[in-house]
Amino acid sequence: MRSYHLDSGAGIDGLAIRWHDDPVPGPGQVLVAVRAVSLSYRELMVLRGDYVLPVKPDVVPVSDGAGEIVAIGSGVRTARVGDRVTATLFPSWQDGPFGAQHLPQRGGSLDGMLTELAVIDEDALVPIPDHLSYEEAATLPCAAVTAWNALTGDGDGLRPGQTLLVQGSGGVSLFALQLAKALGARVIATTSSPAKADRLAELGADAVIDYRATPDWPEGVRELTAGQGADRIVDVTGLLDQSLKAVAIAGHIACVGFVSDTAPPIDPRVLFASGATVRAVAVGSRAQFLAMNRAMENHRLRPVIDRVFAFDDAPDAYRYYASGKALGKVVIRL
Amino acid sequence: MRSYHLDSGAGIDGLAIRWHDDPVPGPGQVLVAVRAVSLSYRELMVLRGDYVLPVKPDVVPVSDGAGEIVAIGSGVRTARVGDRVTATLFPSWQDGPFGAQHLPQRGGSLDGMLTELAVIDEDALVPIPDHLSYEEAATLPCAAVTAWNALTGDGDGLRPGQTLLVQGSGGVSLFALQLAKALGARVIATTSSPAKADRLAELGADAVIDYRATPDWPEGVRELTAGQGADRIVDVTGLLDQSLKAVAIAGHIACVGFVSDTAPPIDPRVLFASGATVRAVAVGSRAQFLAMNRAMENHRLRPVIDRVFAFDDAPDAYRYYASGKALGKVVIRL
Amino acid sequence: MRSYHLDSGAGIDGLAIRWHDDPVPGPGQVLVAVRAVSLSYRELMVLRGDYVLPVKPDVVPVSDGAGEIVAIGSGVRTARVGDRVTATLFPSWQDGPFGAQHLPQRGGSLDGMLTELAVIDEDALVPIPDHLSYEEAATLPCAAVTAWNALTGDGDGLRPGQTLLVQGSGGVSLFALQLAKALGARVIATTSSPAKADRLAELGADAVIDYRATPDWPEGVRELTAGQGADRIVDVTGLLDQSLKAVAIAGHIACVGFVSDTAPPIDPRVLFASGATVRAVAVGSRAQFLAMNRAMENHRLRPVIDRVFAFDDAPDAYRYYASGKALGKVVIRL
Amino acid sequence: MRSYHLDSGAGIDGLAIRWHDDPVPGPGQVLVAVRAVSLSYRELMVLRGDYVLPVKPDVVPVSDGAGEIVAIGSGVRTARVGDRVTATLFPSWQDGPFGAQHLPQRGGSLDGMLTELAVIDEDALVPIPDHLSYEEAATLPCAAVTAWNALTGDGDGLRPGQTLLVQGSGGVSLFALQLAKALGARVIATTSSPAKADRLAELGADAVIDYRATPDWPEGVRELTAGQGADRIVDVTGLLDQSLKAVAIAGHIACVGFVSDTAPPIDPRVLFASGATVRAVAVGSRAQFLAMNRAMENHRLRPVIDRVFAFDDAPDAYRYYASGKALGKVVIRL
Repeated sequence: MRSYHLDSGAGIDGLAIRWHDDPVPGPGQVLVAVRAVSLSYRELMVLRGDYVLPVKPDVVPVSDGAGEIVAIGSGVRTARVGDRVTATLFPSWQDGPFGAQHLPQRGGSLDGMLTELAVIDEDALVPIPDHLSYEEAATLPCAAVTAWNALTGDGDGLRPGQTLLVQGSGGVSLFALQLAKALGARVIATTSSPAKADRLAELGADAVIDYRATPDWPEGVRELTAGQGADRIVDVTGLLDQSLKAVAIAGHIACVGFVSDTAPPIDPRVLFASGATVRAVAVGSRAQFLAMNRAMENHRLRPVIDRVFAFDDAPDAYRYYASGKALGKVVIRL
Repeated sequence: MRSYHLDSGAGIDGLAIRWHDDPVPGPGQVLVAVRAVSLSYRELMVLRGDYVLPVKPDVVPVSDGAGEIVAIGSGVRTARVGDRVTATLFPSWQDGPFGAQHLPQRGGSLDGMLTELAVIDEDALVPIPDHLSYEEAATLPCAAVTAWNALTGDGDGLRPGQTLLVQGSGGVSLFALQLAKALGARVIATTSSPAKADRLAELGADAVIDYRATPDWPEGVRELTAGQGADRIVDVTGLLDQSLKAVAIAGHIACVGFVSDTAPPIDPRVLFASGATVRAVAVGSRAQFLAMNRAMENHRLRPVIDRVFAFDDAPDAYRYYASGKALGKVVIRL
Repeated sequence: MRSYHLDSGAGIDGLAIRWHDDPVPGPGQVLVAVRAVSLSYRELMVLRGDYVLPVKPDVVPVSDGAGEIVAIGSGVRTARVGDRVTATLFPSWQDGPFGAQHLPQRGGSLDGMLTELAVIDEDALVPIPDHLSYEEAATLPCAAVTAWNALTGDGDGLRPGQTLLVQGSGGVSLFALQLAKALGARVIATTSSPAKADRLAELGADAVIDYRATPDWPEGVRELTAGQGADRIVDVTGLLDQSLKAVAIAGHIACVGFVSDTAPPIDPRVLFASGATVRAVAVGSRAQFLAMNRAMENHRLRPVIDRVFAFDDAPDAYRYYASGKALGKVVIRL
Repeated sequence: MRSYHLDSGAGIDGLAIRWHDDPVPGPGQVLVAVRAVSLSYRELMVLRGDYVLPVKPDVVPVSDGAGEIVAIGSGVRTARVGDRVTATLFPSWQDGPFGAQHLPQRGGSLDGMLTELAVIDEDALVPIPDHLSYEEAATLPCAAVTAWNALTGDGDGLRPGQTLLVQGSGGVSLFALQLAKALGARVIATTSSPAKADRLAELGADAVIDYRATPDWPEGVRELTAGQGADRIVDVTGLLDQSLKAVAIAGHIACVGFVSDTAPPIDPRVLFASGATVRAVAVGSRAQFLAMNRAMENHRLRPVIDRVFAFDDAPDAYRYYASGKALGKVVIRL
């Protein structure tokens, strides 16, 4: 069986494919024939060498994948050969808040999913909702779970009658948009082009702000919310200084990461004056993944996939994803 | 101006109409020309004399009403003549948990809304959503706020992917059904007739159990939930022994009242073994009312009204409501 | 090595000791030389055959124990030979709410701790706080974790300035008393004798009600709380009808079990009128156990042990525990 | 009767004392003979003209005061002449989250307490705990309520076994230290001098870090917490970049304001990598004030007062407070 490998910081050209003997699942583990993986921003950080968590040498990259169980180790309780599964990004994070003990992660300090056969702990498995294909399920572990945690993970959660702001059309933002509509909330999206604005509206956005046409988009958010600001923001950009201007008093900003290195610093006075809460969100627990899947099943939500590449063309998939042209997830099919 | 009056326990024949001088709003108060009121189960309890809270002698009955502000007292801050308003049932309960200090209530220890002109504290006013008529708004203060509190008032709240059970087609149950769909949840409803089942499905129920055809409806709920039981139940019947059989482990039962005197006792062992939480819910705060109205506006929800009576026919409205034939609210128009 | 065994319903005379080969820990497991176990009310229910969960035939009884790790299976990550450990009652419940998947339990559907050598999953291990002996640590898994969950497991939690009511001087009640004082709350305890009252006061109870001298102890609670009732009650008796009279509006009753078969039924009207929440509490997760241990360490809390028996005298320990004479835990030392 | 007045930005020399006719309480209001006021950092910001909220011209300054009710307006429900009272800083914020509707505040957009007679809405009154003097009670409305909200206002709240970090020895920090000990938590305090360190230890601090001797105090916090960082931080400095290095994963930073204009900007990447939540805290609701008072009563907590000035020497009190020499509150007695 074949796996891609890379060293942190090696860039796309550092991606190398190698043959291995088929692995054997240990006790409490299963062997998964991977059918699809998807790329997230973290994969680019791993390539660049600036990922926020440790990356093992010669790692099998990519946190997100889906496949079929083809072998079962001893002591496995409920998983069966033939089950369609995906897997959590932090395999040991079952439920409750994140902690230092949960840091080991797939495609970082642990081998990832860009491989034909992956060994997965039973405790990390998540069944694929019936209405989703392997390609669709492969998009969930990082982006969709992050979006669900951002919307619901602070106890209170987004409600009908509240307004969510999502930024742009990356994976987390599109999932946040779709899940927020399932939660019954109103959604404002920002974008950079009329074409993307149309697509966001099709996906359910109640209002779209073109931040090129309206550079002061926080003011645009205030106009759309009777001056109050958005009750909740899923900030994928790191531009928290702007989000703090767009958020309502007592509102909530989920800070889920960065799409650029140029995030300007935040003035702590602006943070204080906002009256808001800023919460760093790093994916989510297996329990959150399962709860989100129930929501996706109930609402027959389908992930937005921009383009699918072949396993042999994985470097092209990385290049396309890095170009920023995709609206939706970039998937590699095996 | 005319008001109905009654003494607790006097029955429908005890309803008397009387003329009064027009009242003058005091400081911090407004005068509301009542346009519509609606009946809730509490009104029957007041008539029967078995209401759980004190009722003043010669009370103006009916907790729920809506109207137009026609005069303003001194010191009123934001209310204006011409505003379309309804009012909270517990006028002093602004936000946070209920407490003994909030017990005074409209149509009980305080005069209610079955009157042409009502004096209301500004702090108790709630603006009517634009898309609702006075008749529709008059149905909200007791039943709809109770339903919203039952679904969201325990911090966690109903989520997409979760299943709610509602019982029958009374006011609270119909609002709970509509609001739960706005919250993105799956709803199972129980009913006693195929005709009502059709109406519940039209309103969004994902499944309906006829409890005459299926007397063991808790088992029916388990069949519809892969054996888990409902994540949440809005119990309007007081038949908690049944609800405890239908609820999921770690589930939530909002106990909102009674439709009969014959609620059988609960075995505490069954409560313990359920692993669930049972929460007594008594309407909700003004903050909850406002939050619910935002949800109703956002989803353009409209209350279900069964029948509208004239002010002079208020006793007929009571009789019709008491017959149990209504599916939806019974309204009296002024 | 020797283990006690019994069949559910066999009574104390059904306890049989047998020799076995020393077990070998499997992958992800450790072997624990048990140094002490403690008895909880559940052990009597297992003996009587009326335990609420399934019990395997010929079970090794007793959920609670503590010991030293003497061997390590493959794949164990952090546990080491020589570690002083106790173990969770529901081995698979790591964090978050309880669910049907967590039902397997030690001393019930799984073998328990009344054995010289126990095989334990690494995920179920809980380190013993340094200041506690094996005997003390053996008292924690059921009673102390239940008490901690009862006080803090509903998100909000007991706070200074609030009043907790505990009933009697069983294991859960004494832990609830001690933990509530660590949480800074005021505690009222009920008891049946002046001698026990003194001991409860020594342990920190701010007030003690003798329910023989004051049969209407709910009224006594109201007198001690300016008429409000207790903010929180840990109900160990199943006498919820009484607790509902003693609880404050918007208060919280944790229903943790039964000490008698004669718990009278609850009138659902009384539950509704209380305005309170009743939550069934079944022990707690490993995360709750770890959090409680941090609190116990920080406050140097020590479990109250009434009496310690030898392993060979286990039936006597059961008989003494069943007599109801103990104030504090009954321990069996190995 | 006499009041101090000032215009925002006028500095200490802008404080002017003037005679007025005795005010008359309107409906729903009481007249309070002020016995003591206390100074908070906000008073210096009002003097400097850089307060974050609007300040009315010729305002009676100072948000915090305590006194005795000497007259009652019409319609007052429970307040009585002779009652010892203090008052909330945001008079309309009763309970629940803060909102734009609650912005009017005493000593800012509303007249404050540096006056012999103050008119107060009944809804803003808070009874003084019996064990506190007027001087002590006058220190509570801003600093103590802020500290309580910082520790408990996010639903979850500080628990025994958790570690709180407080910074320095200003009003909020000392209250946070005292209240955290009442909550049963462990407290680490930072300070700039051995003398202050001794005083902090006397007040209950479990560990004190001298940030002059240990400029990398976040590292000191990690050493004291087994590398985890503090579970919770009450940040009074605005130096969030440092607090983010000292906080545990999934920890909580309450951002309650600034003691300098030189708070350096925050790198959003550091905020994301912390895994923590940063919550802006602006004082608290009346319900939080009442809950805190119950905690203070139950634990017989007494505010730390550094020095008391006479009414005529109010400018000296301001100068002394501005010097930063005080450890504890600066009070003006009337």
